[in-house]
Amino acid sequence: MAVGEIGFPDMPVIEGIRLGSAKAGIKKPDRRDLVVIEVPQGARVAGTFTRNAFCAAPVHVAREHLAGQSPHYLLINTGNANAGTGEQGLRDARACCMALRELTGVPHTAVLPFSTGVIGEPLPVERICRGLPEALASLDDSATAWRQAAEGILTTDTRSKGATATCRIGGKTVTLNGIAKGSGMIKPDMATMLAFVATDAAIEQPRLDVLLRESVDRSFNCITVDSDTSTNDACMLIATGRGAEVTEAEDIARFREALDRVLISLAQQIIRDGEGATKFVTLEVTQAASRQEALDVAFTVAHSPLVKTALYASDANWGRILAAVGRAPVPGFDVDKVTIDLGDVRLVEQGGRAPGYTEQAGSAVMAREDITIRIALGRGEASATVWTSDLSHDYVTINADYRS
Amino acid sequence: MAVGEIGFPDMPVIEGIRLGSAKAGIKKPDRRDLVVIEVPQGARVAGTFTRNAFCAAPVHVAREHLAGQSPHYLLINTGNANAGTGEQGLRDARACCMALRELTGVPHTAVLPFSTGVIGEPLPVERICRGLPEALASLDDSATAWRQAAEGILTTDTRSKGATATCRIGGKTVTLNGIAKGSGMIKPDMATMLAFVATDAAIEQPRLDVLLRESVDRSFNCITVDSDTSTNDACMLIATGRGAEVTEAEDIARFREALDRVLISLAQQIIRDGEGATKFVTLEVTQAASRQEALDVAFTVAHSPLVKTALYASDANWGRILAAVGRAPVPGFDVDKVTIDLGDVRLVEQGGRAPGYTEQAGSAVMAREDITIRIALGRGEASATVWTSDLSHDYVTINADYRS
Repeated sequence: MAVGEIGFPDMPVIEGIRLGSAKAGIKKPDRRDLVVIEVPQGARVAGTFTRNAFCAAPVHVAREHLAGQSPHYLLINTGNANAGTGEQGLRDARACCMALRELTGVPHTAVLPFSTGVIGEPLPVERICRGLPEALASLDDSATAWRQAAEGILTTDTRSKGATATCRIGGKTVTLNGIAKGSGMIKPDMATMLAFVATDAAIEQPRLDVLLRESVDRSFNCITVDSDTSTNDACMLIATGRGAEVTEAEDIARFREALDRVLISLAQQIIRDGEGATKFVTLEVTQAASRQEALDVAFTVAHSPLVKTALYASDANWGRILAAVGRAPVPGFDVDKVTIDLGDVRLVEQGGRAPGYTEQAGSAVMAREDITIRIALGRGEASATVWTSDLSHDYVTINADYRS
Repeated sequence: MAVGEIGFPDMPVIEGIRLGSAKAGIKKPDRRDLVVIEVPQGARVAGTFTRNAFCAAPVHVAREHLAGQSPHYLLINTGNANAGTGEQGLRDARACCMALRELTGVPHTAVLPFSTGVIGEPLPVERICRGLPEALASLDDSATAWRQAAEGILTTDTRSKGATATCRIGGKTVTLNGIAKGSGMIKPDMATMLAFVATDAAIEQPRLDVLLRESVDRSFNCITVDSDTSTNDACMLIATGRGAEVTEAEDIARFREALDRVLISLAQQIIRDGEGATKFVTLEVTQAASRQEALDVAFTVAHSPLVKTALYASDANWGRILAAVGRAPVPGFDVDKVTIDLGDVRLVEQGGRAPGYTEQAGSAVMAREDITIRIALGRGEASATVWTSDLSHDYVTINADYRS
């Protein structure tokens, strides 16, 4: 199940970025599960990674390699997360990088490994190595290569996720392409598992790092399916440097806006394809004393199983929204100043049901697939927007059956 | 659905405590939904209430009345929470107290009102008032009266919850009886919605307050069904003072132990009857730097939808437990020092799967109805125990259909 119709975009070529994939039989046969992304010489790469203390072996290795030198390959497998695998997991992640070195001649430290799938199973290194020649042979910069790579990183996702944007800088067109996967265990903390974005722009490393971090804070760090932060979250931004230079403040603003568009689109696609999702829900919290306070209220509502099941039932049970807002960690909360709107229908004001509210009006909004809940706290001027999905029978089915 | 077989205990008489109930048709016909508890002259009453900022009208009124004078009646209705009802809700709660004054002659401020049920609907004051004579006429101190009162406060609960304990103080037997309700919106913060405990012990007010607060911290504040803190939580402890005096340190310890037994039993009964529950799960976190840290880790695991669905599926998917532990708000977490046990099976050590672990051993524990997960953090000597249930299809069904 997924909310709304979203096709995979026709990705333009980004010169120097080539993508290859293979069916390596990592967990299931006849499934595209191995992806290689080739990064050209001179490109700069920024990355954000999960803050989960039990972060996966490939996250350790990718972070280490990224700190050392400019990467030549991103190597991604689905079907196994190589997380909770201790020392053996680190050895396995490095072994995959070594295998790519054997085939391409680049140092193994120029390979960044990424894994997604079940936690705690040993990584099937041999199957990955056997699949590498096929993935390398298929390296290509075409729209098909992008689409197949997007397919090759999925787990419980029901559809591939891609986004593309352009902006004009110094008389040239700058292009950004991005792919992502994610459907469950989605409450990213730094990034979601997994997103890969490439651009032809030329951007200095420190600025690239900041641009990525800030854009991730406005996109992937504002979504939640089920409050569970993955051990494998990673978001990578590759700037090949073959296109326009992004140095002037005005150009940086344009690039930032385009990057936001790609990342927010990918983040929203993850929510629309959230495990068992039947609703796409936008939570806008305004008039908060700080952005953190706004995020705290938004996530408290977004994580409430009772709000999520009411959304699933298309039930305008606004009492559950009110109860969730009321238990958010906000000191000295004056509930009489809070207003809550469901779409354009006022639900709550003065600590209770708004005078003009009718069940019929609330139900009409709840019946939609795309629902916006606006919560104004009456405490300040900070705000935050968070996107989430509902909690359905299919969520339980998917997660009660995932390993069997 | 509920976990395990637990009968309602045969409650002994506590002299002076009488309970009456009625079928007032508050939400549905032919359902016991109105309860009156009579408190004798000279009794002392302690109470803890929800910390939800949107706390219900009766919570405001009960707190206000309790601060003013010694209560004579506790008036409890199910079928309507009188929460999110603003000024009208306060007027309605007071109107019910007034109605009891008309019938009994006690001041309306000697009545403590409690409500549970749907949030945001106006309280049907007339129906409650019409039911009061029947409830008063049935006032009695018998085991039947206790059982009917326990039944009369239920909402989505599938069974009545009661516990009784005795201890010997000063050559006399002190008795404690308690009833509670709760099944969903259970992540109590001060107390759960609702628990009423009575004893014949004679205890000074300040000591009674402390005893209740501390025992609630070890019982109701250590359970969660769905992370949602109710707007109506309240736990009341009535000490009639007709029995033994509890003043000596040794006697206080004995009473505390008996009170813990009653409150922990009621708290665990709420979890066993958690909405859709098929498992009763004990989370023991040890070797934490502080009790708060131990509670944070325990609740992070207890609230994880992925851990809860794995428990429902009897799937020893320990990677999800590890991922939840890893995202708990613990600064400077060294995962290599963490061990996780499922029953008597070691799952995790040294940051990964324990060497001797087999899927078969894990699955054997997961197949049970009562499951204990032990997490040792290797950081200190504090600990905490939290009880929770799983996330099943029935949870979604119950909460997607609750209002319809």
